[in-house]
Formats: sequence, C-alpha cells, structure tokens
Amino acid sequence: MYKVDKKSKYGADVRILNREEIVSLSDFNSMAEAIERSYIAVSNGGATIPPVGYLPLAQHNGDCHVKFGHLHGDSVFIVKIATGFYGNAKLGLPTSNGMMVALSAQTGEVVAILQDEGFLTDLRTAIGAAIATRKLAKPSAKNVLVVGAGIQATQQILALKNLMPERTFNFKVWARSAEKLAKFVEEMNAADCKLSQCTNLELGCGEAEIIMTTTPSRTPIIMDEWVQTGTHITASGADAPGKSELDISLIKRAHILVADKIDQCLDHGEFANANAAGLISQNDCVELGNVLANKKLGRQTNDQITIADLTGLASQDIAAARTVLEADGVV
Amino acid sequence: MYKVDKKSKYGADVRILNREEIVSLSDFNSMAEAIERSYIAVSNGGATIPPVGYLPLAQHNGDCHVKFGHLHGDSVFIVKIATGFYGNAKLGLPTSNGMMVALSAQTGEVVAILQDEGFLTDLRTAIGAAIATRKLAKPSAKNVLVVGAGIQATQQILALKNLMPERTFNFKVWARSAEKLAKFVEEMNAADCKLSQCTNLELGCGEAEIIMTTTPSRTPIIMDEWVQTGTHITASGADAPGKSELDISLIKRAHILVADKIDQCLDHGEFANANAAGLISQNDCVELGNVLANKKLGRQTNDQITIADLTGLASQDIAAARTVLEADGVV
Repeated sequence: MYKVDKKSKYGADVRILNREEIVSLSDFNSMAEAIERSYIAVSNGGATIPPVGYLPLAQHNGDCHVKFGHLHGDSVFIVKIATGFYGNAKLGLPTSNGMMVALSAQTGEVVAILQDEGFLTDLRTAIGAAIATRKLAKPSAKNVLVVGAGIQATQQILALKNLMPERTFNFKVWARSAEKLAKFVEEMNAADCKLSQCTNLELGCGEAEIIMTTTPSRTPIIMDEWVQTGTHITASGADAPGKSELDISLIKRAHILVADKIDQCLDHGEFANANAAGLISQNDCVELGNVLANKKLGRQTNDQITIADLTGLASQDIAAARTVLEADGVV
Repeated sequence: MYKVDKKSKYGADVRILNREEIVSLSDFNSMAEAIERSYIAVSNGGATIPPVGYLPLAQHNGDCHVKFGHLHGDSVFIVKIATGFYGNAKLGLPTSNGMMVALSAQTGEVVAILQDEGFLTDLRTAIGAAIATRKLAKPSAKNVLVVGAGIQATQQILALKNLMPERTFNFKVWARSAEKLAKFVEEMNAADCKLSQCTNLELGCGEAEIIMTTTPSRTPIIMDEWVQTGTHITASGADAPGKSELDISLIKRAHILVADKIDQCLDHGEFANANAAGLISQNDCVELGNVLANKKLGRQTNDQITIADLTGLASQDIAAARTVLEADGVV
C-alpha cells in the first residue's frame, strides 16, 4: 500500500533524554545564567514567545499548557507540554507532568526530546525566584522565611544557596500542615540543608528579611502589618486567576513591584487583586528583565519593601532546556 | 546538589515510535474511519480543539505550528508540532517536519511520542481529501484529474483507491513542471499505480468528473468555464492566507460548498477570496462533519458542482495518531 512512500531524508538522529539524565545534567549556576539572560531578552524584544496554548480536560479535572518560543540567536527553539491533573494524588501520581521538545531554528528538525516529567519546570521556577531574590533583597539580608513545604520550597532553598554561596542564610519554613512541615524540615536537614520550622507565620514574617512564598493559596496569608521595612518578598505561588498569597495593602505599601511579565502578573499573578482593586496599575510595576539589565532599577535603599511577582515564562523553559542540551553536547 | 531531588513516581514507560514503524502501522481504511468520526465530532461539539499555536522563525524563513486537542471519550489527547522551513530544499532536506505527542487524558502522563517527521500530516490530509471526494462525487464518477505532482498527489491517489476499491478510476495528473510530471507518472506506474499525464489543464478539467487540487498556488489555475456540470472538486492546496487554486466565479457557480471548518476556510482556505469578494458567505457553506453525519446534506443530483475546501484540522491529526497507537497496542 505504501509502495510509493518516500523515505525520510533525515535519518533523524533525535537525542532523547530521560528525567534522570536531565537531573544529572542540570546545574543551578549555568541554568541561572541562561535564565537571567532570558528574562532580559523577553524585556528587550530578544525573544519570540507566542501566547500560551491551553487545553482543558474537564472530565478528569486536568489541563494542558503548551508553552513555546525562541530566544533570538539560539540554535534551537523549544515547545514545552505541561499537564496538571488535580485528582492524581488519589492515584499516587504527581499532579504535574510534561516534557519538552527542542527543534532546530535553522531547519525545523526535531533535535532532542526532554522527558523531564516536569522537573525542568520546577527547577526553572525556583531559579527564577532565586534570581529575583538575589537582585532585590538588601545586601545584608540573611533571615529567609519560606512559605510552603512543597517541591518549590525545596528547590528555591537549594537555588538560593547555590546562587549566593557567599551568604550564610538562616532559613525558616512555614506550612499550613504541621505534619507536612515537620517532615519537610526533617528531610531537608537529613540532606544536609539546615533549616528550622516556623510555627507562627506572623512572628516569622516579622523576623524575615526575605520571604519566599510558594503556595497555591487562594486567599492572602501574609498580612501587611506583619512585614518589616526592608523586606524583600518573592511570590511565585500565584500563577493563575484566583490565586493570591499577599495582602493587597502590602502590595500597595511596597516601594518596588517587579513582575516577570507585567501584563501577565496584573492579569493572573500576585499583583492581579491589587490591580483589580485599583491600588496599583501597570505604571507601578517594572519588569524583571529590565531590573536585571539596568542597575538604576530595583532596590534603592535598605528600608524599601520590594516584591517580585513571578508567574512563569516560556523563556525560562527555553533557557533551562537549552542549558541541559548544551551540557549534553547536543547543541 | 540534588540530594533532595524527589524521584519520579511514574517510572514512565513512554512508547517511542519512529517514522518507519508509524508507516508500517498506518492503514488507510482504519485511519479513514477514525478521521471521518473526527470530522463529525468537530462539527457536533464532540471535540476540544484550541486555537493553533504559531511561532515564526523569520530569520531562517521557517515557522512552527502547534496543533492540539482532544476528541471526547479518547483515552489520549494529542499535541502535534509541525515545522515548515522554506529554504530546506537548498540543503537537500524536506520542507516539512514534525512529531506528535500522545498524553493520557486521565492523568496527563506522556503515553507515546510519534516521530513521524510529518508523515501522518501528509497521510491525514490525503485521507481527508479522499473522504470528502467519496462523499461528494457523483456515484458514477471515474475520471479523476489530480492537479499537482507532489506528496499529496501520491497520497490522495492511494487514499482514493483504498477507500473506494469497488470503483475503477481513470487517473490523470497535471503539473506545472513537465519534467516533474513525467517523473511522477513514471514512478507511480512503476509502483503499479496506473495513471497518465494530463498536458492540457483546460482539456483535462473538461474530461474530469473529479478534480483534486494539491498545489501551493497563489493564483487560480482552474477556470470556471473549463469545469463541466456534475464535477466534484476537492481543493486541499490552499491552507494559508494568499493561497488559491480555483477561479472565484467557479466557487460562486458551485451548488454545494463544503468546508472542513467554515471559519477557517472563509478566512484562509480556498473559499477565502470568494468570501472577500462578497461572492459567497458563511451561509453558502456547510461543514464536512455535518455532511458526513447527515444524508440530506451534500450532493443532491448528478448535475451539481460540489467543492470541498480542506484547510486541515487538528482533529485529523488526533485521529491519525490514535489509530497508529491502537494498531501498536499502546492505547
């Protein structure tokens, strides 16, 4: 039947990497360099990032996001397929999953498939948070409160330690579930990552110089009056409509509001509620890529409160994938 | 550094199929059944098909389309990545390339990767054309003129022969390049697929009862006055703004205009120019899925001219991929 089928001219030699290989090829510092450059590219027009594709799979309480784009000058462009199935925990499966595909920006050929099962998304999110924190926290800040005890809490702590090895941080972690918190602290300490429990969020916020929020909360959990002057907050939990971790009056009070992408943050990030309430507007925000590129932006004094709202960018995925492929020698 | 890295709970057993395997698992008839059902699903709300993602890679005269969606009830949903790099011929590479990913509609896990390099796109396009032709041509039609001598000409002829084995067709093929045409006819005859050259397109159209156009032409090549009453035309070449193969007065003259997706065809398919000129409108078109589901739609008499405008649907990709995976035993 396919007698006339033309044979492929590619003899395509596609590199396929599994999760374990991707983990072993990943390195916080080289990935952070690439992600920092990708933020700058997005803010200065050096990237083509189309709108995110979204497929609801309502019958199984799931959805799929397709994020893709090209950082100009890269030899490959990346398509990321990311799924979230919110009943998976009952089946003993992770909620998130996915993979990425790298294609040649010269010929369109598939170059590599990264079966990372969501690992790179977790990692690039944590590195983004660490980059924003490194840039915006006051130079003396050492007391870090991490809010949440999930994979982002783990990875953000590791990312911060790796990106700022010269600073000796004092990490405290708060979580809604005392049981989950105790287990988290025990595991991290066992893995030689020293930190302690915060059992009173109000007191924890008062002591903190850096607060990193990582929860899927739909109501504010950090109140304005709990936060001391000079604090930097990186909020990475709110990435979809309805999610929010910070009191809107805290957002109003902050001196510097940094968004990974302003329209995205005002629409469905941590800044969305304050924007909807008319407390802030686009003119009150500055984009992370611009802050990273321009020394005059960002924190000016040790007394300022700074907030970074990170909703996640396809450009981070692209940078993360490319870093792995470079380490592997594929590109 | 990744001491605390959580190991995947999946132990994901992803099936990876290469082009050769996909070719050998592909079968015109089972795929046609699935694609016919997919047309019906699209027209009656039985599918979720988000907007197509588009990434231009202007520097290398290329682009990437991401088509994805779910046919309700399917155990998997499909993401297709398709590239077109229009300078590839100079490098000795095919213009089109791509792959598909099948993910569980229950859990979001990656189930299979189909490295088809564009094969399934070619095949589903040809099968779509054969389905429309089978449905709309008059029962006695045997004289088929195929316009173009590329991969779609090959596959549409094979698809028609396979889908309508009871009919003995008389195939003629026309192409702009006499050299390409001679080579095409020689190859097809050598592969035991008998057909002859049409060297005068006007005369060829006059003899034809079925015309299948497969070219990327940007100006009409089939004139109104060349086409006899009772002819069915399946036009699959025009799939992007600016492309067109049929004289707009022929489209105006036709009795039945069938679109794979009405809004798509009126926007950038074969019907777009006639629509822009005000000769036809949405109300003059009927959707292929509705024609396939409802015997009262479609051709009514042997004298009618019918035209099917096929721009290509993600649902065809989904059906094609699922058929391969079923044949492989993955789903």
